[in-house]
Amino acid sequence: MQIAFLFYEEMTALDAVGPHEILCRLPGAKVWRVAKSPGPIHTDSGQVLTADYALSEVVQADILLIPGAGNATTLRDHPETLAWIRAIHATTTWTTSVCTGSLILGAAGLLTGLKATTHWAALDRLRIWGAEPIPARIVEAGKVITAAGVSAGIDMALTLAAKIAGQDVAEMLQLGIEYDPEPPFDAGSPSKAKPALLRKLQTRLLAAFEK
Amino acid sequence: MQIAFLFYEEMTALDAVGPHEILCRLPGAKVWRVAKSPGPIHTDSGQVLTADYALSEVVQADILLIPGAGNATTLRDHPETLAWIRAIHATTTWTTSVCTGSLILGAAGLLTGLKATTHWAALDRLRIWGAEPIPARIVEAGKVITAAGVSAGIDMALTLAAKIAGQDVAEMLQLGIEYDPEPPFDAGSPSKAKPALLRKLQTRLLAAFEK
Repeated sequence: MQIAFLFYEEMTALDAVGPHEILCRLPGAKVWRVAKSPGPIHTDSGQVLTADYALSEVVQADILLIPGAGNATTLRDHPETLAWIRAIHATTTWTTSVCTGSLILGAAGLLTGLKATTHWAALDRLRIWGAEPIPARIVEAGKVITAAGVSAGIDMALTLAAKIAGQDVAEMLQLGIEYDPEPPFDAGSPSKAKPALLRKLQTRLLAAFEK
Repeated sequence: MQIAFLFYEEMTALDAVGPHEILCRLPGAKVWRVAKSPGPIHTDSGQVLTADYALSEVVQADILLIPGAGNATTLRDHPETLAWIRAIHATTTWTTSVCTGSLILGAAGLLTGLKATTHWAALDRLRIWGAEPIPARIVEAGKVITAAGVSAGIDMALTLAAKIAGQDVAEMLQLGIEYDPEPPFDAGSPSKAKPALLRKLQTRLLAAFEK
């Protein structure tokens, strides 16, 4: 079970670290954290992750996971990385994304004609790549699974763990990270947020996406 | 607003990265990722985080956060780190932990006589340090806030964000990471897990805690 996480500068750490905490504990899992160059990866929250492998060192994966970034255009003009994503996708059982990672799958040409999701503030942008935006936590389209913003990667990874290793294994992984969420407020999606806060954050995020 | 995250070898990445994604975006936040030595930190899932500062470089913090580890005894015998935790605690507005990070607070002598929580499988161990174990997602005891296992750090960070910056700011942070959890199963706490899976995982985790 070979699992490749794409790492890149300015990615969002939690998009990768949430699913990583689950998927790396699947029976027989071997995880590669892959980037253009191995070494430090500066995320958009200031903390520094580490890539272990260069793109050229990884030519196959059972699972591919693409995290998102506050600036959703980060990888749009990186032909080498997009070509790697297409090549790995041709070998995967599951190709997945978290948050605006789906816009990177889109830029790689892998979402044409598919239903997909992304961070709520970027949902319309899926149309640029010929995808049909679905405002859901997780969207499955054949072997392509896209998740909504940041924290949705945890739900996606548990869903994927059950498909791969069965529900009992997935439930043990859930129990292991004590994932029994109790958010102190119920404001985590556009339909639940206060309209004024939603507008304020949307304006700020759209500016970041386009910087 | 100075926020210090203690990093250490074999810590659990998500314990820190979940709250980090929220707290680093508080207005005016300055985050220090602090370890015995600055540089790469190998976490218990194989991925490598990075500490920016040595313990000796950080002498004060408004918020201190101690993540946990699969091996809960990791820092018990590190007098230098425990002394640093005590010294920083003396300066904090909030001293916090995620998962078995509370056992480190306990080893530092900071939980004597206090209610506290930790990962469900380690709950009894709080008594070793004179704390009263509470099986809750988040436990507040004066300025000490302890959270349950791994993913509970996200709930704790949002609770803390509201105390510091008000509920509207905290709700925007929740919306920013689209934290509207939809776990695919309801098995994330001991009271909800299948008894056979609970026993199996408990046996495995207790062995890890004591290794």
